[in-house]
Amino acid sequence: MPEPQDNSSDRPRRAAAYPKAVERLIQQFSGLPGIGRRSAERLAFFVLKSSKDEILPLATAIQEVKATIGHCPSCWNLSDGGTCDICCDDSRDRATVLVVEQPKDVIALEQTGMYRGLYHVLMGRLSPLEGVGPDELTIDALLNRLERSVASGNSVNEVILGLNPTIEGDGTALFVAGALKHHPVKVTRLARGLPAGSQLEYANKAVLADSILCRQVM
Amino acid sequence: MPEPQDNSSDRPRRAAAYPKAVERLIQQFSGLPGIGRRSAERLAFFVLKSSKDEILPLATAIQEVKATIGHCPSCWNLSDGGTCDICCDDSRDRATVLVVEQPKDVIALEQTGMYRGLYHVLMGRLSPLEGVGPDELTIDALLNRLERSVASGNSVNEVILGLNPTIEGDGTALFVAGALKHHPVKVTRLARGLPAGSQLEYANKAVLADSILCRQVM
Repeated sequence: MPEPQDNSSDRPRRAAAYPKAVERLIQQFSGLPGIGRRSAERLAFFVLKSSKDEILPLATAIQEVKATIGHCPSCWNLSDGGTCDICCDDSRDRATVLVVEQPKDVIALEQTGMYRGLYHVLMGRLSPLEGVGPDELTIDALLNRLERSVASGNSVNEVILGLNPTIEGDGTALFVAGALKHHPVKVTRLARGLPAGSQLEYANKAVLADSILCRQVM
Repeated sequence: MPEPQDNSSDRPRRAAAYPKAVERLIQQFSGLPGIGRRSAERLAFFVLKSSKDEILPLATAIQEVKATIGHCPSCWNLSDGGTCDICCDDSRDRATVLVVEQPKDVIALEQTGMYRGLYHVLMGRLSPLEGVGPDELTIDALLNRLERSVASGNSVNEVILGLNPTIEGDGTALFVAGALKHHPVKVTRLARGLPAGSQLEYANKAVLADSILCRQVM
């Protein structure tokens, strides 16, 4: 009985591959984050099995997002052309700016319905290991924005730092607070402490330490 | 202090959502198998962050696959137009047909380099619970193909059943074997037994039972 041959066999192999268009699709899917070769094959077969009506809207949606979505020139939130809905909303408090890492955070905060000021999206956090320095973020744009607000007479009087309570988020918050030192604004950060609905006995040391250090007057 | 409001709050919410094009993209991604809302958001943000050159080829690849890829009219393997490469290859043995469940199985078998006959892709397996009966598979096409081969003088003399060694695969194999009863072909199935490179002590009962029942003469 002949031995099974390995993939480096030199007999013609053209039939042992997917058609070129399918292979290209698999390659493209494997370029997405969290999707390996196997998942990419599964997705490609799903595309093959789906009707055109079911799957072509995905291609269109990708093209549409790249064609229409950009960043708000004022706060860097996602926007489908020009200034975003939040910056355009006259009912919002223009004297307060909440600084967040990414557009997703704006959505999360908006869903509480508790904040009526404006935002500023940094587009990331400082991360020296990943090569993200202050120039990769929109910190300069924030400083310019504060200066413009003073010049226009509608000055911002509070900047709330809403970065993630992680090492990198805290580092970024310190850096932004330092950069704001010479601006006449109050700088605050989102409260840190026990998450609502949690139980003391399961809270970790860092959370409990925060809850003691930042205890609030009732 | 006011209570945080829930999502059903009736104050204007338009700002708390992604721009429409982004939302559409998230919806489309969540329609893919194994991708939930969170992963879909992650993919959408990846699309937003990528340059057009990086991400538009994915949209093009989807459109191209739907525009160009079909099934080989003879064996139902994937093909980019008309008869597939394997069916067109004159060096292959036209007297043997290996029946598999899906195009992926053809690729796996071709990669061994051990098989030089033709294939027939059933496009699934019988699965009454999922509503897949014989009419959903290409069994009729297989029978027609065998009849045509007899008429053309190039008759197929062996059909190898290469379905998965699972309950549904075995059921499908039995059904196909039954349908082939009145055709003058030898019907075989892929060997079942110990997987090469495995250890007896870790093999499960079904594998060991197969290895005993189907023991081979040395």
